[in-house]
Amino acid sequence: MSAADARPQPPVAEAIRADVARALAEDIGPGDVTAALIDPAARARARIVSREAAVLAGSPWAEACFRQLDPQVRIAWHRHDGDAIAADEVVCELAGNARALVAGERNALNFLQTLSGTATVTRSYVDAVAGTRARILDTRKTIPGLRLAQKYAVRCGGGHNHRMGLYDAILIKENHAVAAGGIGPAIRAARAASPGVFLDCEVESLDELREAIDAGADRVLLDEFSDAQLREAVALAAGRVPLEVSGSVNLEHVRQIAQTGVDCISIGALTKHVHAVDLSMRFEDA
Amino acid sequence: MSAADARPQPPVAEAIRADVARALAEDIGPGDVTAALIDPAARARARIVSREAAVLAGSPWAEACFRQLDPQVRIAWHRHDGDAIAADEVVCELAGNARALVAGERNALNFLQTLSGTATVTRSYVDAVAGTRARILDTRKTIPGLRLAQKYAVRCGGGHNHRMGLYDAILIKENHAVAAGGIGPAIRAARAASPGVFLDCEVESLDELREAIDAGADRVLLDEFSDAQLREAVALAAGRVPLEVSGSVNLEHVRQIAQTGVDCISIGALTKHVHAVDLSMRFEDA
Amino acid sequence: MSAADARPQPPVAEAIRADVARALAEDIGPGDVTAALIDPAARARARIVSREAAVLAGSPWAEACFRQLDPQVRIAWHRHDGDAIAADEVVCELAGNARALVAGERNALNFLQTLSGTATVTRSYVDAVAGTRARILDTRKTIPGLRLAQKYAVRCGGGHNHRMGLYDAILIKENHAVAAGGIGPAIRAARAASPGVFLDCEVESLDELREAIDAGADRVLLDEFSDAQLREAVALAAGRVPLEVSGSVNLEHVRQIAQTGVDCISIGALTKHVHAVDLSMRFEDA
Amino acid sequence: MSAADARPQPPVAEAIRADVARALAEDIGPGDVTAALIDPAARARARIVSREAAVLAGSPWAEACFRQLDPQVRIAWHRHDGDAIAADEVVCELAGNARALVAGERNALNFLQTLSGTATVTRSYVDAVAGTRARILDTRKTIPGLRLAQKYAVRCGGGHNHRMGLYDAILIKENHAVAAGGIGPAIRAARAASPGVFLDCEVESLDELREAIDAGADRVLLDEFSDAQLREAVALAAGRVPLEVSGSVNLEHVRQIAQTGVDCISIGALTKHVHAVDLSMRFEDA
Amino acid sequence: MSAADARPQPPVAEAIRADVARALAEDIGPGDVTAALIDPAARARARIVSREAAVLAGSPWAEACFRQLDPQVRIAWHRHDGDAIAADEVVCELAGNARALVAGERNALNFLQTLSGTATVTRSYVDAVAGTRARILDTRKTIPGLRLAQKYAVRCGGGHNHRMGLYDAILIKENHAVAAGGIGPAIRAARAASPGVFLDCEVESLDELREAIDAGADRVLLDEFSDAQLREAVALAAGRVPLEVSGSVNLEHVRQIAQTGVDCISIGALTKHVHAVDLSMRFEDA
Amino acid sequence: MSAADARPQPPVAEAIRADVARALAEDIGPGDVTAALIDPAARARARIVSREAAVLAGSPWAEACFRQLDPQVRIAWHRHDGDAIAADEVVCELAGNARALVAGERNALNFLQTLSGTATVTRSYVDAVAGTRARILDTRKTIPGLRLAQKYAVRCGGGHNHRMGLYDAILIKENHAVAAGGIGPAIRAARAASPGVFLDCEVESLDELREAIDAGADRVLLDEFSDAQLREAVALAAGRVPLEVSGSVNLEHVRQIAQTGVDCISIGALTKHVHAVDLSMRFEDA
Repeated sequence: MSAADARPQPPVAEAIRADVARALAEDIGPGDVTAALIDPAARARARIVSREAAVLAGSPWAEACFRQLDPQVRIAWHRHDGDAIAADEVVCELAGNARALVAGERNALNFLQTLSGTATVTRSYVDAVAGTRARILDTRKTIPGLRLAQKYAVRCGGGHNHRMGLYDAILIKENHAVAAGGIGPAIRAARAASPGVFLDCEVESLDELREAIDAGADRVLLDEFSDAQLREAVALAAGRVPLEVSGSVNLEHVRQIAQTGVDCISIGALTKHVHAVDLSMRFEDA
Repeated sequence: MSAADARPQPPVAEAIRADVARALAEDIGPGDVTAALIDPAARARARIVSREAAVLAGSPWAEACFRQLDPQVRIAWHRHDGDAIAADEVVCELAGNARALVAGERNALNFLQTLSGTATVTRSYVDAVAGTRARILDTRKTIPGLRLAQKYAVRCGGGHNHRMGLYDAILIKENHAVAAGGIGPAIRAARAASPGVFLDCEVESLDELREAIDAGADRVLLDEFSDAQLREAVALAAGRVPLEVSGSVNLEHVRQIAQTGVDCISIGALTKHVHAVDLSMRFEDA
Repeated sequence: MSAADARPQPPVAEAIRADVARALAEDIGPGDVTAALIDPAARARARIVSREAAVLAGSPWAEACFRQLDPQVRIAWHRHDGDAIAADEVVCELAGNARALVAGERNALNFLQTLSGTATVTRSYVDAVAGTRARILDTRKTIPGLRLAQKYAVRCGGGHNHRMGLYDAILIKENHAVAAGGIGPAIRAARAASPGVFLDCEVESLDELREAIDAGADRVLLDEFSDAQLREAVALAAGRVPLEVSGSVNLEHVRQIAQTGVDCISIGALTKHVHAVDLSMRFEDA
Repeated sequence: MSAADARPQPPVAEAIRADVARALAEDIGPGDVTAALIDPAARARARIVSREAAVLAGSPWAEACFRQLDPQVRIAWHRHDGDAIAADEVVCELAGNARALVAGERNALNFLQTLSGTATVTRSYVDAVAGTRARILDTRKTIPGLRLAQKYAVRCGGGHNHRMGLYDAILIKENHAVAAGGIGPAIRAARAASPGVFLDCEVESLDELREAIDAGADRVLLDEFSDAQLREAVALAAGRVPLEVSGSVNLEHVRQIAQTGVDCISIGALTKHVHAVDLSMRFEDA
Repeated sequence: MSAADARPQPPVAEAIRADVARALAEDIGPGDVTAALIDPAARARARIVSREAAVLAGSPWAEACFRQLDPQVRIAWHRHDGDAIAADEVVCELAGNARALVAGERNALNFLQTLSGTATVTRSYVDAVAGTRARILDTRKTIPGLRLAQKYAVRCGGGHNHRMGLYDAILIKENHAVAAGGIGPAIRAARAASPGVFLDCEVESLDELREAIDAGADRVLLDEFSDAQLREAVALAAGRVPLEVSGSVNLEHVRQIAQTGVDCISIGALTKHVHAVDLSMRFEDA
Repeated sequence: MSAADARPQPPVAEAIRADVARALAEDIGPGDVTAALIDPAARARARIVSREAAVLAGSPWAEACFRQLDPQVRIAWHRHDGDAIAADEVVCELAGNARALVAGERNALNFLQTLSGTATVTRSYVDAVAGTRARILDTRKTIPGLRLAQKYAVRCGGGHNHRMGLYDAILIKENHAVAAGGIGPAIRAARAASPGVFLDCEVESLDELREAIDAGADRVLLDEFSDAQLREAVALAAGRVPLEVSGSVNLEHVRQIAQTGVDCISIGALTKHVHAVDLSMRFEDA
């Protein structure tokens, strides 16, 4: 086993298979009523082409769309997930059963355009903070049913994943702190209940930040801090714990935030909005 | 049985249940590791509030999120799917098990913000063509796994649904016509193969339009026609068959297209992009 | 992509896979308790033979039965779905793991005998109306859980499919017309609600037929019309809309109905009754 | 716990629920496109009525069809599974959401007509052998996906179930006996492999019958014996083991077979053919 | 088809596939967060080695763990299910994608260690009664969700299976006999209700044993009989029906029980306790 | 919302429902063939009683077993999960449909006996280290398919959960460190790839421990350290990072390990072995 490369790791094959089976079921259901016009034995060749610059993401889902319809389909990927692609680039070439390619087309493009959209917007934020220590994180504000795929797309764009869900990291918010009698007690109670779980804690002031650091949070989320307050927080933390910024962050403002010295900036817009990338599939003349 | 009202009909309960179960599974999975801070017997009250003007959609999914976590939860909806809501309006009030409300919050909001986003953008197109005969239609360019929900959101916004998928209407595109030896033969072959299925046919010229009408298409899709060509097409069709416009349509241009007299304008942007509406859930002090 | 051939298109592979997995589960469950008598490594050869004349349907399901039990099984089909087969014809030859062939036998035959039964009765109706313009249609009166398969078998027999279910075509019945305030209002309301959906409307008199045609139905279903009334209806419609006959139709009477000039005759008996075709699987001596 | 009554026991609720969910999914799928004509809040009353004499079976499935669409539906059953019903009898009365009753109608009737068909034909065979010791058994020749339901319908008709599948009883056929080196060795090997499993053995002669009895079969299946041979077999067995007749059995001949003194007659026709009973659902005027 | 060998037959592939998919889902879920350290294209070789003497069981599940993660994995089994293995024996060798082997390791070992544990303890009981006529049977006291796999492991250890569940054999217990008005009436009623099902009956005295034999039970279960009573029971039964011992049976006492001449001894401890066998997977240096 | 209590939180209801549905399916399948002896309308009362001292776990699963068979069943729990119970204590009382109680009995007991077994052994380890700072952790060595339930049982016994699976915490083992070029590089690469994930690192020497601490591991797992080495490690770590002991740990030795001052002791035996607790369900006379 040699050292790993930098490509983001997609979810396990079974999860991709299930995503694709669900998409095909909702699109094809009892069968393609227009397919009768195509010889069931006909073969076709096609290519998927970008119509605008983007960061590619979603190729395992696109490939599975075609493969579930034609297990013998051949797909050559010219560009890979995480690659920046220009307008009019050939993303991949396909050859296989004509009905399968026609029926799979829209489904494959739906995955590619959605996930590349997420990767592309993520990359724009990642580029905006280049040279700072800040990492771009996603959130749990995702399209229902597509979380694993969107979180993978964020990685394709160079972002990092916040927790996958409620199960894999503790995030103490105001409600929790109130219920537990304060930030310190909340952190200690949560740590005691789940000793091997990453613990993030939301704070609204420098005093709360101090309390969270003292109680041993693994990361502290600064909620609605001004840039000046962020700089104070960075000084106060002094590297003892990573600091995360949340709240209203946009592409214009993100670099300024990053330059305060915070470690992570989490951005709901990466995954709650989708700006689909324009891709098309072109069939070759037979 | 009395006549129906105007409210859009959501998908069958089982489909909503499955969408929600999948969302909860990907978010909560083995359990909420922060929930240990909340007394399992504690009860809470909360309200969902809009933070911007929008058209509401998704309430059956949001309700199911809470109900799957606490079957006894009480939810009073003050605004209904399809309603225009202003900023700071209370959408609904909830009372139930505190852990269930906290765990369900993000999941419910993810459904509401995504689907209300679709309803809202649809409404803006519908409003833009008000007073013309043109209906706004969606497409198959949807977020994988969310098609039924998105198509319902389009109806909440006042739009109409194009076919659900490949199974419930014939749409003859250029590839099909080439394979069948022309538009007329393609329409006749498809009609013969599936006599009780709505038949839409894409054409690229007035000659093809004439051929499609003669062959008895139920609707004709005019692909990349200029406004002048659209007017000619309307004159040529003379009401014998509904005409649909597709291609590059945006909010600025849509009214001009509608004023050519076409019957339907199908817009991929309704469902391939998502601009999540800003909603929040606020807990009342115990 | 070349033009399509006449063979009926089976449902997507995933639907067939699921049908077969369910059948194997209900038959084999925890395991074949008699299989202990057969060497797990033994191989066998067999053939499936018809014992009566029939129209073949169901081969993709039969093949999947064996393949799910032995992925390496080899099957050579001598006759194809839609073919008329005589008594004592060899339908296919199989070679594979002996336990898999023995366990799969009854399951494969159950699919073939059921679906070929449907194709065979359909063919008898299709043949009875040969030379007329009438097409034979199925209905929603199907064996629960087997609709896609039965609808495919109808196509194998030369029939055509009425709507797959409640989702892919509008069918306005008396209850709907009453709720909407008449046939005309019902058609217009349904069309407005779902503009791109095929619209069938049931009528009980010539006046209602006229109303349905004027309101723009895509097809009109004539309920319990006498042959004389059917001829009047054909004259009245004058080709403006296809006419469908429903109600009590049997093989003796069907040609007479067809000769009235109607376009479609829908027959519940095709799929609500099943007359299984007699097929057997014969093992070769090792 | 008091002694059991004679009503046949339906499968576990979960199995019925799954059968019904599959049926509703294939019929309603993304939604009833005609339902827009019915007020979503409207309520309706209806009754299910027989149009011919029959034996009723399938009420738990029919009830589940309506209940999955409207959990508050009220259903009063006037006749129960296993009851003989006359033409024009009211089977049940329903009150509930109008859309749910309309959408559930065909699905509920499909279950009732299919399963009552099986119960009715079974009853005719049971009646034909009344007064003899012979029981009527079903086989594994069933409609794929509906085995548990059909086997229950057989019990509703007064028949008994042969094994459910390959898993719950040993049935040694000719192939097995050949592989094991004879009927005696096959029985002993199967018994040794699965000591607590009912063991049925097929024989083709009196010698084989003797061998099967000596080896301790729990029941012996006499394959294609003439009536005279059956009488000899009954004499030979002398009550030591139950005898089962299989092969070509029809309603005309079955009593004669029963009078030879055999214990069981298994009949594929009970479940491989379906003669749907004519039932209808009538809505009351609102 | 030649005669069967002695190897136990595993459940159908689909059941194994489902067991493994569930295990991988609960372990890997959204993805292995440590896998980023391993090159996704790296290949690895490994071997599974026993660390203690045991009877092997579970290889089809272990193999499926790796194959679901890497369909091209190569696995050479040196020892087979049912084989006695010594400490430090190589059970199998593997070569495949490094991430797949690392992620599959624990899951494969969990199946092997659990099921080999069951096979090993079963073998110790089987060996303890060697030379007597007694067979060792399992019970329905199993780990939820693992019954088929555990019952297979019992067969690997040389034991036999009692009924799989409530569906494949009748077992009349005290409650049933009371409800039916005695052991004889209960047996006759159960036999009449389900004529082709193996019938076991629990008795608590010699009188009840006599009643059960007279009523025709296929096997009688002697509940909490002393060894002396067992010998009386064996004499009374005189080979007319197999006798089964249940109740408190341990490894020290089992041979003494077997020597009373009973036919079967059923032991809950085989499957309700699990003593995992110590196995490890060792990676070869790259 | 008030502060949480100490009771362990069970998995989400859907996960429990699925566990129970699977168990009932494998036990009851097509139906309880002995149930015919019990009147379907009969009601029964019963109680579940412990036959040995134990720690209770699994009540939500047991309750779901009965509720899936009889939604109206009434269950009063006298003892709760996490409670120490003595021999002959009444755990709960039940009243409901007699067939449902009889069919659910074994399934409910199988969950309770398995999970209480895990809670009981966990409690013995927790008690053994009482007064030290050491927490008892579980591992990924679990019964396939039962991980969430077993991890919950560990919490009922007073233990804490190590990671749920490969997805919710990084654990760098020797293979990973070799692939990444050492422990320090491995930690830094893993942290960079997944910044918000708890990071555990296995070390085999004090030098490696130092390297892991310097690289910022969240916890360090000391593999096969002697007690003397553990004390050195505790001194070296000096509270900067929690230390975890793994390897061969048994009940005799565990206190001695805890007294070295380590923070966590992870024990595979908690979940890979199962010693089922002896519980029984007793029916009251009607």
